[in-house]
Amino acid sequence: METVHTILETRKIIKAWKKDGLTVGLVPTMGFLHEGHESLVKKAAAENDKVVVSIFVNPIQFGPNEDLEAYPRDLDKDKLVCEKANADLIFNPSPEEMYFDNAVTSVAVKELTEGLCGSKRPVHFQGVCTVVSKLFNIVTPDRAYFGEKDAQQLAVIKRMVQDLNFDIDIVGCPIVREEDGLAKSSRNTYLSRDERKAAVILNESLNLAKEALKSGEQYASKLTGIISKKISSEPLAKIDYIEIVDSLELKPVCKISSSILVAIAIYIGNTRLIDNFTWDIK
Amino acid sequence: METVHTILETRKIIKAWKKDGLTVGLVPTMGFLHEGHESLVKKAAAENDKVVVSIFVNPIQFGPNEDLEAYPRDLDKDKLVCEKANADLIFNPSPEEMYFDNAVTSVAVKELTEGLCGSKRPVHFQGVCTVVSKLFNIVTPDRAYFGEKDAQQLAVIKRMVQDLNFDIDIVGCPIVREEDGLAKSSRNTYLSRDERKAAVILNESLNLAKEALKSGEQYASKLTGIISKKISSEPLAKIDYIEIVDSLELKPVCKISSSILVAIAIYIGNTRLIDNFTWDIK
Repeated sequence: METVHTILETRKIIKAWKKDGLTVGLVPTMGFLHEGHESLVKKAAAENDKVVVSIFVNPIQFGPNEDLEAYPRDLDKDKLVCEKANADLIFNPSPEEMYFDNAVTSVAVKELTEGLCGSKRPVHFQGVCTVVSKLFNIVTPDRAYFGEKDAQQLAVIKRMVQDLNFDIDIVGCPIVREEDGLAKSSRNTYLSRDERKAAVILNESLNLAKEALKSGEQYASKLTGIISKKISSEPLAKIDYIEIVDSLELKPVCKISSSILVAIAIYIGNTRLIDNFTWDIK
Repeated sequence: METVHTILETRKIIKAWKKDGLTVGLVPTMGFLHEGHESLVKKAAAENDKVVVSIFVNPIQFGPNEDLEAYPRDLDKDKLVCEKANADLIFNPSPEEMYFDNAVTSVAVKELTEGLCGSKRPVHFQGVCTVVSKLFNIVTPDRAYFGEKDAQQLAVIKRMVQDLNFDIDIVGCPIVREEDGLAKSSRNTYLSRDERKAAVILNESLNLAKEALKSGEQYASKLTGIISKKISSEPLAKIDYIEIVDSLELKPVCKISSSILVAIAIYIGNTRLIDNFTWDIK
């Protein structure tokens, strides 16, 4: 496995692979890899001849008061995770390699980015779409892998790929969880011991909503009621949003009649965590 | 030469070419091809193994009061022009083939699109960048050819390609002119006989500015003065803009010290025509 830091080197390696008729899977990440990322890399390795993992903390997807500087980084550990999961190439550019000083181009997906995480993080998804477009053009993968934990991101990227005609299959991968049910996230490292314990409330509250759906609950407002009540029982938790939306257009639903996404964002202390599940009507 | 109307067929043909190691040149057009387009196709044919001409009147680059419906179309004649100029494939999709009903993604280039044609046509360049991104992803050309007549468009596309890391060479091609100096344009067909005669004022006024530069003129305001005076002498002409900008960032210049773009947009009757030249300081 090789680690390269320039676009030129990355292109050279991938062009040689493509010349040999090999397929390429891309796993775009911001590094500090955990078992969630590992599952993406493993799936990519199973479905493609070659796997590229990009590791880049993308400055333009962080808002002015977000955690860009504090975002955890550990390239050495990331290399071990990638190697173990059968990646072939790590693309780890500097911000200067990715963005010229005079860069003025952006890719935006409207509507799908207005609710959920998008309403509180107005520049976030434009930053994500712009950097993912760049990575797609640099790596030219056959398939790209994204975690279902970032459900809105996955829906937005799928729509971007459809709208801009990228010839790339977008593969969503299931959430990987800690033993107590907390979704794996690089941001979990921000939590103190007490906060870490409290964070289990995200998954627990979603499980209650899932139970209600299994029992035939049809009203979104009932589900948000169940979730918010549970979260309110945890003193360290503060609700950012609880939303029930259709899983394609991400528009709020009242009565549940199609495939839905139940998504929540909760502050545990100062750390914002997200979790979700999708529910298909048979 | 083949004409296809779907993205799927286009991809299939181009993938077969690429598999054989052939290079591909793309000439994106809105059809109603004239000698200007022909020169682009010929240049593409000289520099690539295969040439794709896209013919698509792109609805999203027209503003609400612009000439989308009236824009001239003649596919049969276009086919003859392409054939003669050694194109290999015409990609001629319908608006429905290019845009899903739920399309919400756009590509935007800021700053460079704020002056010149961008200030009066606020949606125009976003529509151009979005459709050109789509065409790039569908055709995956090695090189793409654009006329220097649309100088701002050329600068914007070059910047977009740099910023989004499209692996495509953007080739600008010189303006092709009628015998009396009027720049070839599909919109010239809108002109009445009197208007057609009057339209020569665009090129004539630019030539006066060029003479002044040759004589050592250093102030942009002097050049705009020379051009506006000349245009005012033509009763059928109405100035939309006269701008002297640096040719990279398209920012207005006062004293001429670098490579500049002298660009004008003039209404002749109801028809808006553009022309320009670049001037390099040695």
